[in-house]
Formats: sequence, C-alpha cells, structure tokens
Amino acid sequence: MTSRRAFLGGAGAVAAAAVALPGTAAARPELFFGPHQAGITTPQQGSMQFAVFDATAENREDLIGLMRAWTLAAARLTAGLPADHLGTADAAPPGDSGEAIGLDPARLTLTFGFGPELFLLQGKDRFGIAAERPAALVDLPLFPGDQLETGKTGGAIAVQACADDPQVAFHAVRQLARIGAGAVSLKWTKAGFCAAPRTKGTPRNLMGFKDGTMNPDTADARAMADYVWAGKEGPAWMEGGSYLVARQIRIALQHWDQMRLGFQEQVFGRHKYSGAPLGKTDEFAPLDLDATDAEGDPLIPATAHARLGAPALNGGAQILRRSYSYSDGADFVAERWPPWRQAIEYDAGLMFMAYQKDPRSGFIRIFETMSRLDALNQFTTHVGSGIFACPPGATPGGWLGQGLLG
Amino acid sequence: MTSRRAFLGGAGAVAAAAVALPGTAAARPELFFGPHQAGITTPQQGSMQFAVFDATAENREDLIGLMRAWTLAAARLTAGLPADHLGTADAAPPGDSGEAIGLDPARLTLTFGFGPELFLLQGKDRFGIAAERPAALVDLPLFPGDQLETGKTGGAIAVQACADDPQVAFHAVRQLARIGAGAVSLKWTKAGFCAAPRTKGTPRNLMGFKDGTMNPDTADARAMADYVWAGKEGPAWMEGGSYLVARQIRIALQHWDQMRLGFQEQVFGRHKYSGAPLGKTDEFAPLDLDATDAEGDPLIPATAHARLGAPALNGGAQILRRSYSYSDGADFVAERWPPWRQAIEYDAGLMFMAYQKDPRSGFIRIFETMSRLDALNQFTTHVGSGIFACPPGATPGGWLGQGLLG
Repeated sequence: MTSRRAFLGGAGAVAAAAVALPGTAAARPELFFGPHQAGITTPQQGSMQFAVFDATAENREDLIGLMRAWTLAAARLTAGLPADHLGTADAAPPGDSGEAIGLDPARLTLTFGFGPELFLLQGKDRFGIAAERPAALVDLPLFPGDQLETGKTGGAIAVQACADDPQVAFHAVRQLARIGAGAVSLKWTKAGFCAAPRTKGTPRNLMGFKDGTMNPDTADARAMADYVWAGKEGPAWMEGGSYLVARQIRIALQHWDQMRLGFQEQVFGRHKYSGAPLGKTDEFAPLDLDATDAEGDPLIPATAHARLGAPALNGGAQILRRSYSYSDGADFVAERWPPWRQAIEYDAGLMFMAYQKDPRSGFIRIFETMSRLDALNQFTTHVGSGIFACPPGATPGGWLGQGLLG
Repeated sequence: MTSRRAFLGGAGAVAAAAVALPGTAAARPELFFGPHQAGITTPQQGSMQFAVFDATAENREDLIGLMRAWTLAAARLTAGLPADHLGTADAAPPGDSGEAIGLDPARLTLTFGFGPELFLLQGKDRFGIAAERPAALVDLPLFPGDQLETGKTGGAIAVQACADDPQVAFHAVRQLARIGAGAVSLKWTKAGFCAAPRTKGTPRNLMGFKDGTMNPDTADARAMADYVWAGKEGPAWMEGGSYLVARQIRIALQHWDQMRLGFQEQVFGRHKYSGAPLGKTDEFAPLDLDATDAEGDPLIPATAHARLGAPALNGGAQILRRSYSYSDGADFVAERWPPWRQAIEYDAGLMFMAYQKDPRSGFIRIFETMSRLDALNQFTTHVGSGIFACPPGATPGGWLGQGLLG
C-alpha cells in the first residue's frame, strides 16, 4: 500500500506530487529541472552532505545509465518523494532506505559535478570523453601549506546535497550511492551546517566572523554570467554550468579562542561583530585598501584576509562562496602553527565551497596569493580538495550530463 | 559597546534577558534552572553535540570553581546570551567565540553528568568524593560484540548540548570547553541529528525504522519517578537526577540497504513504515509476544529487537531513550558481520542516549540479553561508551553538583 501510494512513476509526475504534499507551513521544494543546476545560486540551506565518488563503470553506456538513474532519483528526492519503490516484504531490497519518510523536502537540492578523473584516469579514457575536458577544469596546483589527505582529495563525480534538515541531505546521498552501486563507489563524504541568522543577514563561520559578505549578488544576472556561469568560452556541454572548488579546511579553534579580539580583527581586516571593514561600521561598506592609520600604516593590514581576497587585488576575480562549517568530533593533532602545540582538538572547520565561471581566474587566482600571505593561515589547514565541472541543469525527459555523454 | 550591551551580569538577569530577545516566531528558550536538569524529559531537539571531558583539576576547590563557572555560563547560553563578555580589542580574548551571535537560542539545553573517573582515577580520590559514588554508577560490563575505542569511552564529565540548530549546540560545548581550561580537557565529542517528522510522531533512525516508540511517557510523573529520576534509594545528592548511558553505535548502512523489507522487519519485530508490531497496524499497539503464525512459530521472532527490549522480558525495565543519528563521513572498515565485507563505508550510525533511574535495572538489564541475541547485532557495532551520574538541576544562585561538592 505505502509503496504504491509513494511511487508515482517517472519525472513527469514529480512536479504534481510536490504540490500534493500534505499541507504545512514548510517551504516549497526547490525545483530540480532548469537551465542551471539548483544548489548554486539557491539561497543557502542549513545543512550539507557533500560526497565524492570514484567511477567504477567500465564503459560509456554504464556511465550514461548512472546519470539517467541519478537524474530521475534526484528529481524525485528533491520533490520529497522516496527515491524509488519502498518495497514489499519478499521483493528486492527497498528502493529507499526510509529515514526521510514523513519529513519535509526541506528545500533539498542535489548538484552534480565531474572531476578530472572522470575524463582521464591513469592515462585511460574509459568513457571516450577525454577530448571534451574543459580547459577550465584544471588540476589544482599544490598550494603552500596544503596538507591534503588522499582520502579527502580528488574523485570522479561529486554530489552536493543541501537541505534545511541534515537527515534529508544525508538520506539523499545515501540513495544515490545505493543506486550507483556498480558504476560508482563512495570515496569520501562530509556533513556540514550553516546557521541561518535570526534576522536576515550573512551567516557566521566557526571563527565567529561573517562569511560571504563579498559574494556577488545571485539576483544580478550580469554578475552571475560574469563570475559564476560558464559561457561560450568553453565546450558547449558546459554552457550554463559552473565549476566547483571544494576544500576541507581544518581550523584550530582552541588556538583561535585564545586570541584577543583586536588581533582577530587584524587577521580578518574586518570588525568581528558588525562585519564592517576595519574603521567602518557598515558590513557592506567598500574596502578602502589605501586607508592608513595615525602612524601611516595600512588600516587594513597587508596580510589581512579581506585585503588578500579583494577583487581589486585579484584582477577583479570573484567567486560565489557557499561554505558550510563542519564538526567531526575531536582527535589528536599537531597544529600547523605554532608547531609545538599538540593536543586533542576539535576536528572542525569549514567545508569551503566556491562556484565560479573559471577556476583559473577565480579560486586559483585568489588563493595563490592568500596561501602565501594570509594571516589566517596560522589557524587553518587545507586537508581535502576537489575540483568539479558542474554541467547545466537538465530538462524534464533529459538527464544531467547529456550534453557531454549523450 | 556590543560587549556592554550583551553582558547583563549574573544568573539573576538571565530570565529577563531571555524574554527581551528580539521578537520572532522562534520557540521559547528552555529553562535552565529547576528541580531536574533540562535535556532529559525536554522534547527532543533536532541536533546534539555530546562532549566528554577528562578532569585535570588537582583539587576540590578547582572542581567547584569549574561547576560554578559552568552553571553560570550554561544559564546564559541556554537563554541565548553570549557565555561572557564579548571582549574589547586590547583586553583578554573574547568571552564568547561569536558564531551564535544573531542566532535563536533554538531550545538549547545543557545536561551535565559525572563519570566513575571523577570519583576515583587510578586509585586516587582527588576530590574527596570517592565515598559519595552512587552504587548505581557502576562500571559498565564489557558486552559481547563490544569493539570499544579508548578515545570514545569513559571520561570524567559529560555535557549533552541539544538544540534545534547544530551551530548553537556546537557553540555551547565550545564555550564550556574554553571556560573549563585548566580544570578539564576535551576527551571526545560527537555531533548528532534527529529529524522531526513533519507531522507529530516518532522520529526514524538511519535504518529507516521509528526509534523511541516504547519510551515511557515523559508527561507521566509516576513513570518518570519509576524509571528516570533517581530517588531516595541512593545518595541524597543524586535525588532528582538521572543516570545516562551513552553508546556510539556504528551501523553498516550499505549492508542494511541490501536486505529485503521482510527481513528488515523480522530483525526489528516491527513493520517498517507504520512502526506497528508485526501483524498489527498501529505503532502503539502492545507487543503480543505469544502470538504465533500459521506454522506455530512466534510472530515476533525470538531474536527480534523489539522482543528482546520489551519490558515483559526484562523484569519490567524501561529506559528513556533520546538518541541521535550521526554521520562522520566515510572510512575503510571491516564489518562485524559478515566478516569478509570490507570497503569504504559510512562512518555513521546512532549515538544512543538513554536516561534511567538505575542502569543496573535499566540499560544493563536490557542489553545483557540483547547483546547476545539481537538479530540487529549483525549490522551494529558499539564503538564508544560512557556512563554518567547527572545530578538534579540547580536553583538560581546555586550551581550544578553543589549537593556533591558544596
């Protein structure tokens, strides 16, 4: 009974089903189909489950089968439906693990990206797509200070599941992993949270500072075209897509908590509580990089995080950050700086997620300088890394990645 | 400025401050002071950050100082206030790390418990309280199948932070850890989530089954007195308190997802979607342990989880479960059963949290049988464990643990 009512068939039924959900004050589900994938300019949800898969498919047909199945499941899941039939006692295992039954769709979005390894792995072009690899999908360079762990780095396909409920986000990744068995295997996954301010505003990260103040305006189509969406400069299959750079950044929170407020603000180049540039009171006041104090020193220090990230110092570069804090318990760690500090500390920090038109003029351009000079580096260590080409959205009846593989 | 406005002084100001928060549709803050600690019979929040500390204090006075400072900070945090002064540029480090500024109190509760190690560590009675250790605070036996990791087991003081926002829960633990520096050091910590059903009802764990159906009714004062609150049978300082057994249970989700629905239901002894006992349709229908099927076999199998946990088979034992799912990424693991399954799998499962009047007639009584016979054990592995005596609540002007240490 349950399974029959819950399973409404293909993607065509999804929109109607979403509307037919039992009435509550819940937010409307996010639309899955469209010119761009959801989860990029979508207002940030409270939770993320990020997952990266290795591709184990042996040929292009299997990869196409995966993307078709994932597209259908993603459309259903984002509409608040089970991924597939819930199952009967003696049939195959249930088509959905069940922990989201009765939960709100919670604005779930699922965003897919292809990593360099999908195009070429150890010299093998398994899927016949090596020639289609965009120039913008570069291998990220090793930056100064990187302490990347292989288990958290690279991967063939990424899935970013975001929702206002962590159980909904985890559930979605879990269904996709099960559906993908044989074609992909889970390489790494990471849960994150982003607290919504009670009053509208920029969320704070675990350093207590606002994070995202300088983001381009997602309502500004021109800015999105200039900084976020891939255009005609690359392969046609990526037009309307975006490039994701994901970095797991561990933060020495216990160490940070011992720093004076004034020092913290010098590190960021901003006031902690208002988010305003040093010397200003408005969070969104422009950064005056030439301002000096009474001694003639820069008001915003040369090594301040905000200065080094400013578009004016990076050839106008802008990226759309959509990061989530993470807290994975605690373990014994030797901090990056000072190196003599070793203790059981939070395994916590920021899952940095940035979307951009081209990583070469986006994240790489900005972080080349930051990784060398940023005062924040005393407290942060990049331990995971990935770069992914996120294709444009699918249309009903179509599937994600069809422009590349179809 | 900010710090002056935000810091309103001692516990006396807390209640007024909570009421004065900017008006929103947010839930009212949970009360911190009272005859019992909050976070036990409080309706379950969506997120938990559980933390266990080693005691590094060298004498009773330092431990008293810790509990006084923690009581004050906990009263402020649960009311939505910073833990202490936000700080000025050149003064000491901020008294609060800042990531909860602007967030709703989110029904934060902070629940404290004392572990066996606080009373006696390696034969040393550092705080002069060894004689006050309750008989009910036993050392948990090693159960069949336990694969406990030392880093996740034991500890001197536990803090359970629950809130409807994971950032609020993490923030609270972080402030307490900083305030406690010198008297305690973090041993382990774990984040969890519990999704609230859209319609009122029992939440589901990551196995997709409802979890908590058989809980005693927290609105039934007699049941709470019988099963949850410590009474006059133990030391006076614990009267009105409760005993927490915390177990980190890793679950082989990928393995579970390959099981047929009928098998899953035989394992639990309940129907998956309704939560009803096998053969019934109502979640809250009583378990009929004598019912048989057409072949004369028990309808609820001898190894079913629900049967083995039933009060009727455990001398009437009941415990108040308040568990949270966790998802800590993925790692390479050899499953407990079948032993030949080794792969990168979710490091996910259940942070089992159970409160009770006496663990000897509660968790231990129930789990002695379950750990040997429960069919669920094929998919679950207990990797962390702790037992803690949670004293009664504090009154304004008083502090937690005063009955033991004051």
